[in-house]
Amino acid sequence: MSAIRIGLIGTGRIGQVHAESIEGLSEATLSRVADTDTRSAEATAEKFGASVSTPDDIFRSDDVDAVLIASPTSTHLDLMMASVEAGIPALCEKPIDLDITRVDAVREVINSSGVPVAIGFNRRFDPHFQDFRRRVLSGEIGALEQLLITSRDPAPAGTDYLAVSGGIFRDMTIHDFDMARFILGDIVEVSAQGYNQFSEDIKGLGDFDATSIALRSASDQFATITNSRHAAHGFDQRMEALGSEGMVRVENVSDTEVRTYTAEAVESKQPYKNFFLERYLDAFRLELLEFVKLVRGEPGQCPTFDDGRMALMLANAATESAQTGRVVRVEA
Amino acid sequence: MSAIRIGLIGTGRIGQVHAESIEGLSEATLSRVADTDTRSAEATAEKFGASVSTPDDIFRSDDVDAVLIASPTSTHLDLMMASVEAGIPALCEKPIDLDITRVDAVREVINSSGVPVAIGFNRRFDPHFQDFRRRVLSGEIGALEQLLITSRDPAPAGTDYLAVSGGIFRDMTIHDFDMARFILGDIVEVSAQGYNQFSEDIKGLGDFDATSIALRSASDQFATITNSRHAAHGFDQRMEALGSEGMVRVENVSDTEVRTYTAEAVESKQPYKNFFLERYLDAFRLELLEFVKLVRGEPGQCPTFDDGRMALMLANAATESAQTGRVVRVEA
Amino acid sequence: MSAIRIGLIGTGRIGQVHAESIEGLSEATLSRVADTDTRSAEATAEKFGASVSTPDDIFRSDDVDAVLIASPTSTHLDLMMASVEAGIPALCEKPIDLDITRVDAVREVINSSGVPVAIGFNRRFDPHFQDFRRRVLSGEIGALEQLLITSRDPAPAGTDYLAVSGGIFRDMTIHDFDMARFILGDIVEVSAQGYNQFSEDIKGLGDFDATSIALRSASDQFATITNSRHAAHGFDQRMEALGSEGMVRVENVSDTEVRTYTAEAVESKQPYKNFFLERYLDAFRLELLEFVKLVRGEPGQCPTFDDGRMALMLANAATESAQTGRVVRVEA
Amino acid sequence: MSAIRIGLIGTGRIGQVHAESIEGLSEATLSRVADTDTRSAEATAEKFGASVSTPDDIFRSDDVDAVLIASPTSTHLDLMMASVEAGIPALCEKPIDLDITRVDAVREVINSSGVPVAIGFNRRFDPHFQDFRRRVLSGEIGALEQLLITSRDPAPAGTDYLAVSGGIFRDMTIHDFDMARFILGDIVEVSAQGYNQFSEDIKGLGDFDATSIALRSASDQFATITNSRHAAHGFDQRMEALGSEGMVRVENVSDTEVRTYTAEAVESKQPYKNFFLERYLDAFRLELLEFVKLVRGEPGQCPTFDDGRMALMLANAATESAQTGRVVRVEA
Repeated sequence: MSAIRIGLIGTGRIGQVHAESIEGLSEATLSRVADTDTRSAEATAEKFGASVSTPDDIFRSDDVDAVLIASPTSTHLDLMMASVEAGIPALCEKPIDLDITRVDAVREVINSSGVPVAIGFNRRFDPHFQDFRRRVLSGEIGALEQLLITSRDPAPAGTDYLAVSGGIFRDMTIHDFDMARFILGDIVEVSAQGYNQFSEDIKGLGDFDATSIALRSASDQFATITNSRHAAHGFDQRMEALGSEGMVRVENVSDTEVRTYTAEAVESKQPYKNFFLERYLDAFRLELLEFVKLVRGEPGQCPTFDDGRMALMLANAATESAQTGRVVRVEA
Repeated sequence: MSAIRIGLIGTGRIGQVHAESIEGLSEATLSRVADTDTRSAEATAEKFGASVSTPDDIFRSDDVDAVLIASPTSTHLDLMMASVEAGIPALCEKPIDLDITRVDAVREVINSSGVPVAIGFNRRFDPHFQDFRRRVLSGEIGALEQLLITSRDPAPAGTDYLAVSGGIFRDMTIHDFDMARFILGDIVEVSAQGYNQFSEDIKGLGDFDATSIALRSASDQFATITNSRHAAHGFDQRMEALGSEGMVRVENVSDTEVRTYTAEAVESKQPYKNFFLERYLDAFRLELLEFVKLVRGEPGQCPTFDDGRMALMLANAATESAQTGRVVRVEA
Repeated sequence: MSAIRIGLIGTGRIGQVHAESIEGLSEATLSRVADTDTRSAEATAEKFGASVSTPDDIFRSDDVDAVLIASPTSTHLDLMMASVEAGIPALCEKPIDLDITRVDAVREVINSSGVPVAIGFNRRFDPHFQDFRRRVLSGEIGALEQLLITSRDPAPAGTDYLAVSGGIFRDMTIHDFDMARFILGDIVEVSAQGYNQFSEDIKGLGDFDATSIALRSASDQFATITNSRHAAHGFDQRMEALGSEGMVRVENVSDTEVRTYTAEAVESKQPYKNFFLERYLDAFRLELLEFVKLVRGEPGQCPTFDDGRMALMLANAATESAQTGRVVRVEA
Repeated sequence: MSAIRIGLIGTGRIGQVHAESIEGLSEATLSRVADTDTRSAEATAEKFGASVSTPDDIFRSDDVDAVLIASPTSTHLDLMMASVEAGIPALCEKPIDLDITRVDAVREVINSSGVPVAIGFNRRFDPHFQDFRRRVLSGEIGALEQLLITSRDPAPAGTDYLAVSGGIFRDMTIHDFDMARFILGDIVEVSAQGYNQFSEDIKGLGDFDATSIALRSASDQFATITNSRHAAHGFDQRMEALGSEGMVRVENVSDTEVRTYTAEAVESKQPYKNFFLERYLDAFRLELLEFVKLVRGEPGQCPTFDDGRMALMLANAATESAQTGRVVRVEA
């Protein structure tokens, strides 16, 4: 089978990750690259052997089989609509948008178009979490009852980025909302707390730097999510499920199995894989492989537009709950 | 120094634990034993070389230096009052009562009596949690930000017991509320969710079999508590603290350091110490040693009547929050 | 049953350990204490409520049910002979002697006396190693094939002690020889290497500060023992068994289950329990309980005089092997 | 820089591993493939887009920059000689030969040829062992004293293969001899034991199925190696170094960080990565990258012909020691 030719829109940090992933796959190749920052587009095109383009040209060209949308959040919906209109499958980064009204305005068109659209919830493809989910769903711990998600970044992004990020629930917790849905299915209630623990900058933005969230599923299972925008010991990404017959846990991933033992401390490892590029390298690659399957019309596991919408609805509910101090019900 | 002579009121399960602890200490001796179940009192008295007595006689006798109240919850306040009136120091099991109005009615008398009264929050004395707290408070992880408490019993008690227990927040989570206060200090807000995940009996009592709770401290630190009334893998008691400079965790305690490696699984240990008698054996002993210090007038760390009251207030707030779906503020 | 009255001969470091163990047991009591250092004997007698005595008086008195021999190695055989002649059961510290000729001269008398004599290989009673052995012998890993023993002291004893210790094989490895026999049964070949890695003092004594030893059992199983006289990370005591169906390991024992995570290192624990008093506290107590059974004529697991003799023979074989560079055969 | 064009001689199991590694690298490409089994050569050529060839043609062609020798051991020396004569850099699989006389006959020619020759001790490139070595050599644990290598295959190869393998020391332990030299430097003494623990087939070949080996370095450091030809719990590859200031260990590598907790066992992981293809996937890739550097004339870490020779000499010494029961001295 010939390689899928991908047009990449957006060549920032996450765009680079995808370009690297594409290069490592024999199933895909990078054909066109677009970015409002022309120099970034040119550098990326040269590095990966693609041509510089514009979104319009990408959607019109005959050397693009699929697009990868890694541009700013505010452009996501328009670019997904353009993909759908051009009949070109799209993989779009999260979140799909910050405004649920805008999302709902295009939902019907996108969902009924028959054009494959996938959302970049890459953590679903992490081999550790895949194995975790497989065990939980296969009944290895009986009936699932509780899910605990710990998710802490090593350090917050810059204030410029955070100012337009939509707040911690829509920018950071959105991954955890999606993971909770990936394991538990439909969520019906959200109770969220936000905290200001260390960053005056984040407080100044009216945002939180830490959260504690309880989600209730349709069948009275629950997920507890805790976040922090910093963690001195490294990127802290863990999950734990309790079932009627036991527990499954995913602990953090280290670079090596080396441990040191001295007069100060024993069994010590190096701090955890630095950030999402390192920790989720496999996940980004496997996500892309699933997207290739989707483009080829094969059955796969790509998160859908509605998965993106539900994660945003949970983020909105969490924002409201943190502001009002009330549990917020969510309607599917 | 001569051994403290203790009168034990209540010879049920927890009374037996204390009687065993007393026997193992050279600093204390069991002199009198009382229980409405005369046969239990007689058996306990014979086993530990004490005499059978009544609460009234215990408070009047001259061979009792201190009382240990391990009778049903509904008797706790009256027996503490009797201790205070008799001028005999008391160690009273948790919870102090299920009704905050009754608690507040005697609070002033007990607190101003000058007679030492300690409450049996034994987990404060567990060597693992003591080491955990010492590290957190010493600044080993910088400024404390988040606390996560996982607390799951191996299996629920019988329905008879649960029916009069005051509900999961007052009976089980009360230990975790106390631990949160032990680490974080004053709590100002409680947001609690209750779940019915496996027990029709507990649901029939209008009670929950699992919980997820967020506590906010005066300085915007938080504690997340999750409970379950069952855990197939054993008594599950863990804590984790995140600070500005790192994290400290206490994992579960095993009987031995033996691990097995087979074609089915590797690095396996036996399920965790069965229940609180085994897991908190050291804690019960150390609690008693602190109480001995209190009786002797030495400085110590015994939880006070007001610690017992605050744990009940948090349990009440959690109950209200779980019912109303709202964050509940707590006034000290 | 009334408590066994014990006469303790030798009140040095190991004698104190036993005196503490005796005090903690209701099954035994310390009645008499003897030491050539009169002040040590007096202090010990006063601390534990015993009377000062002499070995002769201990063997003649009617208030001693058993003796515990914790005096210098050179006195062990004579004191065991005196016990046997007096008809008083004895628990004697390891090694039984440094000279196999002297051992063999009294062997017949002691073994045929009918008076119980136990040797203080306390590590047999460590709960971790007991569980390890139980699993191995029960067939949990199929047929046993290999045993790996790691045994490292935190730091060497003083030169005065080492000069009369009989060398590392007879003083330190002797515990590991006994453990190998405890798990594997009869040993038929010894190949030993000695090394001088860090201590000029030990080299000056013609002794080694590290060893690597291979033992072959009658059925072609093997044990590999490695020793070091120092270990910066604490008392390092581990075992590993490989069988046809898997592996069992005992890792080191920590004081608590607390782990720290910082920007420098994650999953760190405190260095291991400092030395044999802390690490083998339970083992000394359980050893004494087994000895009480032996004194009472109940079936038990106490190491015998011949266990002490075989450990010495393996130490002798190792010494010879390390000197000649040849495998040395051992005859039972 | 353009990709190095590689001619692969030998398309068996290990040849396939290398072909896969080459395909995954942008720095190298597979141009020609040779094997006496024509169908295997053809299938490999087609799979990886190379042409079928013969060794002679590979050495004569102008589309080969380097050769990778993965043919049977008996052909290694001749093919290395042919490489050297053709002036084409070679990466040759271990062992270089089973006969030290034949090795020494070509040593001078190969070493003085100026043509780069590397030996395939892939474990040197494993990221875990690289990190381990870096820490040890950087003085993180002070002066190195002891090295413990545990190396167990999941199951023995077939009897046909084993019959011509040169025995366990030359076929399996040879990797561990190289690792010992990689960490400790020159080895001067070998004491080896061989055992027959489970395989009648291996015993029938006059070979061993398990070993225990002590190596002494020039400066009285030591390495203890233990091997088994089977391990029910998976490919068991560990190292441990003790130094004057502490210890470093590399434990086994798991596929994921998932652990399960049930009523039967807690903290369980899946058995270890099945065999060398999975466990050393990264190592094979990194080995190839180092070889590319060597071919390009850049400084690198490739094991040399003399590294291959010394590993064989240690294997020979071990064989002799196991037969004679004596320590065998090795001259560099």
